[in-house]
Amino acid sequence: MNTSDQATIFSSKEYLNKFLEIRRMTEEICEPLQPEDFVVQPVVDVSPPKWHLAHTTWFFETFILKDHMPGYKLFDDDYPFLFNSYYENEGERWVRADRGVLTRPWVKEIMQYRAYVNEHMEQFLNTNGLPEELRLAFEIGLNHEQQHQELMVYDIKHILGINPLAPVYRNFKGEVSEPNLEENYLAIPEGIYEVGYEGDEFHFDNEEGKHRVFLESYKVLDRLVTAGEYIEFIESGGYQDFSHWLMEGFEWVKKEGIKAPFYWYKKHGEWMYFTMSGLEKVNRNQPLTHINFYEADAFSKWKGKRLPTEFEWEVACKLHQPNIPQSANFLDKRNYRTMPRVGDDYQFYGDAWEWTNSAYLPYPGYTIADGALGEYNGKFMVNQMVLRGGSFATMRNHIRPTYRNFFHPHLRWHFTGLRLAETT
Amino acid sequence: MNTSDQATIFSSKEYLNKFLEIRRMTEEICEPLQPEDFVVQPVVDVSPPKWHLAHTTWFFETFILKDHMPGYKLFDDDYPFLFNSYYENEGERWVRADRGVLTRPWVKEIMQYRAYVNEHMEQFLNTNGLPEELRLAFEIGLNHEQQHQELMVYDIKHILGINPLAPVYRNFKGEVSEPNLEENYLAIPEGIYEVGYEGDEFHFDNEEGKHRVFLESYKVLDRLVTAGEYIEFIESGGYQDFSHWLMEGFEWVKKEGIKAPFYWYKKHGEWMYFTMSGLEKVNRNQPLTHINFYEADAFSKWKGKRLPTEFEWEVACKLHQPNIPQSANFLDKRNYRTMPRVGDDYQFYGDAWEWTNSAYLPYPGYTIADGALGEYNGKFMVNQMVLRGGSFATMRNHIRPTYRNFFHPHLRWHFTGLRLAETT
Amino acid sequence: MNTSDQATIFSSKEYLNKFLEIRRMTEEICEPLQPEDFVVQPVVDVSPPKWHLAHTTWFFETFILKDHMPGYKLFDDDYPFLFNSYYENEGERWVRADRGVLTRPWVKEIMQYRAYVNEHMEQFLNTNGLPEELRLAFEIGLNHEQQHQELMVYDIKHILGINPLAPVYRNFKGEVSEPNLEENYLAIPEGIYEVGYEGDEFHFDNEEGKHRVFLESYKVLDRLVTAGEYIEFIESGGYQDFSHWLMEGFEWVKKEGIKAPFYWYKKHGEWMYFTMSGLEKVNRNQPLTHINFYEADAFSKWKGKRLPTEFEWEVACKLHQPNIPQSANFLDKRNYRTMPRVGDDYQFYGDAWEWTNSAYLPYPGYTIADGALGEYNGKFMVNQMVLRGGSFATMRNHIRPTYRNFFHPHLRWHFTGLRLAETT
Amino acid sequence: MNTSDQATIFSSKEYLNKFLEIRRMTEEICEPLQPEDFVVQPVVDVSPPKWHLAHTTWFFETFILKDHMPGYKLFDDDYPFLFNSYYENEGERWVRADRGVLTRPWVKEIMQYRAYVNEHMEQFLNTNGLPEELRLAFEIGLNHEQQHQELMVYDIKHILGINPLAPVYRNFKGEVSEPNLEENYLAIPEGIYEVGYEGDEFHFDNEEGKHRVFLESYKVLDRLVTAGEYIEFIESGGYQDFSHWLMEGFEWVKKEGIKAPFYWYKKHGEWMYFTMSGLEKVNRNQPLTHINFYEADAFSKWKGKRLPTEFEWEVACKLHQPNIPQSANFLDKRNYRTMPRVGDDYQFYGDAWEWTNSAYLPYPGYTIADGALGEYNGKFMVNQMVLRGGSFATMRNHIRPTYRNFFHPHLRWHFTGLRLAETT
Repeated sequence: MNTSDQATIFSSKEYLNKFLEIRRMTEEICEPLQPEDFVVQPVVDVSPPKWHLAHTTWFFETFILKDHMPGYKLFDDDYPFLFNSYYENEGERWVRADRGVLTRPWVKEIMQYRAYVNEHMEQFLNTNGLPEELRLAFEIGLNHEQQHQELMVYDIKHILGINPLAPVYRNFKGEVSEPNLEENYLAIPEGIYEVGYEGDEFHFDNEEGKHRVFLESYKVLDRLVTAGEYIEFIESGGYQDFSHWLMEGFEWVKKEGIKAPFYWYKKHGEWMYFTMSGLEKVNRNQPLTHINFYEADAFSKWKGKRLPTEFEWEVACKLHQPNIPQSANFLDKRNYRTMPRVGDDYQFYGDAWEWTNSAYLPYPGYTIADGALGEYNGKFMVNQMVLRGGSFATMRNHIRPTYRNFFHPHLRWHFTGLRLAETT
Repeated sequence: MNTSDQATIFSSKEYLNKFLEIRRMTEEICEPLQPEDFVVQPVVDVSPPKWHLAHTTWFFETFILKDHMPGYKLFDDDYPFLFNSYYENEGERWVRADRGVLTRPWVKEIMQYRAYVNEHMEQFLNTNGLPEELRLAFEIGLNHEQQHQELMVYDIKHILGINPLAPVYRNFKGEVSEPNLEENYLAIPEGIYEVGYEGDEFHFDNEEGKHRVFLESYKVLDRLVTAGEYIEFIESGGYQDFSHWLMEGFEWVKKEGIKAPFYWYKKHGEWMYFTMSGLEKVNRNQPLTHINFYEADAFSKWKGKRLPTEFEWEVACKLHQPNIPQSANFLDKRNYRTMPRVGDDYQFYGDAWEWTNSAYLPYPGYTIADGALGEYNGKFMVNQMVLRGGSFATMRNHIRPTYRNFFHPHLRWHFTGLRLAETT
Repeated sequence: MNTSDQATIFSSKEYLNKFLEIRRMTEEICEPLQPEDFVVQPVVDVSPPKWHLAHTTWFFETFILKDHMPGYKLFDDDYPFLFNSYYENEGERWVRADRGVLTRPWVKEIMQYRAYVNEHMEQFLNTNGLPEELRLAFEIGLNHEQQHQELMVYDIKHILGINPLAPVYRNFKGEVSEPNLEENYLAIPEGIYEVGYEGDEFHFDNEEGKHRVFLESYKVLDRLVTAGEYIEFIESGGYQDFSHWLMEGFEWVKKEGIKAPFYWYKKHGEWMYFTMSGLEKVNRNQPLTHINFYEADAFSKWKGKRLPTEFEWEVACKLHQPNIPQSANFLDKRNYRTMPRVGDDYQFYGDAWEWTNSAYLPYPGYTIADGALGEYNGKFMVNQMVLRGGSFATMRNHIRPTYRNFFHPHLRWHFTGLRLAETT
Repeated sequence: MNTSDQATIFSSKEYLNKFLEIRRMTEEICEPLQPEDFVVQPVVDVSPPKWHLAHTTWFFETFILKDHMPGYKLFDDDYPFLFNSYYENEGERWVRADRGVLTRPWVKEIMQYRAYVNEHMEQFLNTNGLPEELRLAFEIGLNHEQQHQELMVYDIKHILGINPLAPVYRNFKGEVSEPNLEENYLAIPEGIYEVGYEGDEFHFDNEEGKHRVFLESYKVLDRLVTAGEYIEFIESGGYQDFSHWLMEGFEWVKKEGIKAPFYWYKKHGEWMYFTMSGLEKVNRNQPLTHINFYEADAFSKWKGKRLPTEFEWEVACKLHQPNIPQSANFLDKRNYRTMPRVGDDYQFYGDAWEWTNSAYLPYPGYTIADGALGEYNGKFMVNQMVLRGGSFATMRNHIRPTYRNFFHPHLRWHFTGLRLAETT
């Protein structure tokens, strides 16, 4: 997570506006909720929304205000213990798996905490500007909060989705365009390619280290796999035939009795799924979502294909769709659903995070920075798979060809999809 | 759970008043809470307060209104599935361990549910009176709700007590009288005694079946064991010396790293404990509470004594203190703490539930009634121990010498204490 | 576990013969086994046979030889750590659940250990006789080894019975007499009865404390329930109907998918079960075995009856069949099966351990002795149910009306059966 | 797992000799064991030695004899169910985690099974030669058995090593030469390199697919890390300082209370470890072994270095030590220990499997073969890390620069070590 030396220096005013805009967005996501919805943790991977509200605030309090604003007084001495996530450098913390048992502080107290930190940040930026040595922490703080915005959407959907009342988050009306669902492939010739981030904008340390890779020639599908294609897999017995599956994947299928993507149910012979607008019929033309790595991998094998590696994905994206098309779903952040592919959009950006067949590992020359911010990415580099591209819930400045997202292969409550590939 | 044939027949008006008074009391217990506090389930034995609010309402809807009030419409067709506790006769139900993941219905919706059922009950009683065949279900409904009132106090204390912020439920000011803590015993001679309920008032089926038991001569302490006496046990190494413990108890101590009663912490050399008024110093003169059966048993062995059986307790109570003294703690339901023993009160009533060394088993001639209400008591008669006497959180008409409470031996979040006994 | 002061004093020679006979019997039980069979622990409750061989030997080494035979040298300094079972007084010990991972010492080494301790015991008894202060420990040692002989039979059956090859222990030929399976009851009038052991023979501390109990009038079946009667329960849907079951029992049935007693399988429409002679058809006239407390309780409720208490059992036995009939199964220890009831034998003795509806609790005046031998019985007095009567694998001098066996209610690998009762 | 078309065609006699030699070697590894040692499974990853003996035999019976030898009769119809490991194509199988509860078939019966299959294989090869279409299955069978030979050594060490008696497998006398332990690095310039297997010899499918990779310039240590170097890590507090660890690694350390490599114990201030010759002092000059991926990774970060990727390892090996030096440890298979590095041996071969920082993933163009043999490698390609080089227990023809071994990152009962690397 670095900013290059040449990065544009914004004015204090600009920094402040960016800060306040992002802070406000976090709260906007929570608008449809009542206090009860902010508290629970149905599975360990889901955090209570009020925890996200507080944790993102703790980040600015801890890495900016606490040590750098003269006379700053912690809002509450117990909050660092409650709202540190995993930063060992920042001391003891409440156990992650027990986030869902804390009813206090109440939501309104956490909103007061947010206001308090916002006010102090405003005062700090107005007084000091943003000192050079805090710029990195500040920018990470903004990006960190945006990552949590996306996680909050996942978590809110999970909290609502497991409730038998199938509550509606917001009623979205999707424009249905004429979809373009042919099965075409983008071909990339063998050669040395450069991958990794290079430039002046904010980016994370895990994507830094531009370097060369040699790729044998390959091709990738020019769109995401659709729900309809996956229904064929299901209905041909895909979940019952071990030969498509990694062994750990098939064990997961059998142990959990899996028969469909997360949030999918068969009701009166019809595939239904839980959306942010409540229970709906599955739209076969939409990109498939809510599958884990095992399912993505099994589907690709059933099709006689495979998943691309993260570098195959990045190179194809840079070569064939270097710029974000205007139609990309994430541009309207309020429409919380994937949309069918229309026209020539290759769906590299902001539709669904795409599972790759790359494990999450460091780039050559990667080193972990000292101090708490060094704990941001590097310590997770084992047993996780890389996802690329972004989902409709991803903030726009988190969409870029080099961005590396990562999750354990069994998880599927986030907005995940896949694209097929083949060595040629 | 039966009422005898001679039970006083109340007027509809009287029934209604009783009903409304009890229903109101349930809500009064929740007054200090905000919506967040109603949702969580920190351990499987604790239910979210909003679940109690709804479940007690479901009871009247299910056993009175649904089948007996012409034209009654369920408030919500999903609620029976959500708020049935364990009645197999009443069909499928939401898994108990997952009560704490349901953020909907919101508290305000559940309060609407309560109002709806209250109104219909009022209308029903005003129109029909209370038909003879519903009298049992109705009275069980009232007693059931009072049992849940006590459980709610346990559960609220648990929810607040595990929070590092140690939130206050209400600030109670206890009058501290001059305690009388001598160690005197009540002696009971050998003989045939009658135990079990006989009379015209409401009582549960598990206490019915008045029958004779032969007791060898024995004596029991004329008050509850105090916190101060238990501190001696702790400080003499009681938790480290296996010889006082049942094997399962000592395994629990080692596995969980237990060093004191639940809610007790040692801070700067001082024993503190979490109360409904927040964190306080342990008052050595108060009855000990929040110990499980293993601890009660170990303490009694360390003292060279034992726990009384449930019949020894009942006979001693009936012989020595047949009537409830005016000083009994539970008379002021709003003072949620045990009080030191004063004067001649033997503390049989309403201070703390007293662990006995009797397993919860049926009385001779006990049979389980048909239908859902038959599931009330009988199906729990294994692996649990009987407690007698009632706590300060117990409603007054649940205090009687024959009342049998029961819990698994490892539990201690409820208001439990003990009294020593000895065979003579 | 005491011997009364008046107990017959045997000569050293008689003690030695008793000792050697019992020691030999333990080894005889293992004759059909090969070394591999001695090592495994398929579930935590089953111990490897070689562990039993060594543990019973450790008992004599620890409580007789180590401190009382001058110059005695431990066979191996590591064995006390390996072969102590649960005696906290005797120091650290190998974890029970891991007994099945120890391949060393080999069986032949353990047999050398047995021979070494036998020789030293012989030498000790020949030299010293049996000093008065060791008589109790010695007699407990003998009775302890006989209890382990019975456990070894359970454990060997378990080890063979879970193997898909269904290996034969020994081929037994059972004489099939004309069974007498009418359903008659023995009636006992209300009154004060004496229970508990009184006499000069060896007995355990848990049965001591002869005392009076008052029993309301009742009756008990004059034989054990048969396999055929239980098949009716199964085939009427007994395992599917919650109304017969204790809640914990029904949860066990659902969680484990239980459909029949342990070792029973339905094959081509026929009930088969695994016996010490391999897989056989279920004989409907034989006493039912291998059911746990939950199943015994559910069956009795399905029949409109209940289980007797341990005192109802003891009083009925003493009144109606004070002496052991010649036909009792256990008289031929080598016929490892229950036999159909013939003639007037009430099957109180040595057919199958009978579940009672009594929890395992202390008798009035019971106290735990000091030292390691005090750990023999008392520390298990919670969460277990009492069984009475003995099985065909029980040694003859462990059969008496006052003998109290105890197991957790979910267990059923031992030879368990039941008898119906009713309050009259 | 393929043999190229140009592979040397051996005569039937040569095939048979190879077969018999490998089969004999498996049994030779078991010579120091008694029947008890063959049965247990202390953790799920360890299989009982008798299972290995039978499973390797089942492989030849299943893939050669059963369908190809006219008139062949299975040795025992139950064995395929018992001794299939994970081949879904071959039908149902006994659960892996329960291999350690099967005492039958006895070892002597399994030896009869081995002899029976050997005789039939001999007869088959003598009669038919080795038909072209069975050559692959036959060669995989041989290599498969050699892999199990190595696993048996791991498993035997585990079975003996957890026993408090610390039994000796065999007493090996190690020649101690003058070690050469300087810290020198082999430097490799950036460029395109070829990796993967190319040639005519037997190899596995996972190493096939020779392809190009681009490597940035780097260097690797010219020997393995020593036990002495790791002691410095331990004694500087390496296991307590989270900053060296992957998060999952540090959680493992805390949860399991890890303080040293597997089999290491500190005794009277001295580091001891369990070896095939029993308990010995740690030799600081020997290569470190029995560390898992998390430990290897943490050590390398503590040193300011990192692990090499599998391609960095392969390229360095091919460039700097293409041929196996005579001194390589594995040449004397009977000396079951790593030896200090002497002279110029870079220890790429046969000392200890070296953890790389590469996840186990397919090479470009990799496809899984149809049928059961296709299940050999591909279905394990998730959540595992690649190890390279071979250990002293690895058979010689399993040592080659392209060989890919793989294990989950938390495992360490196998002979694992590490080599440092750095991007330059």
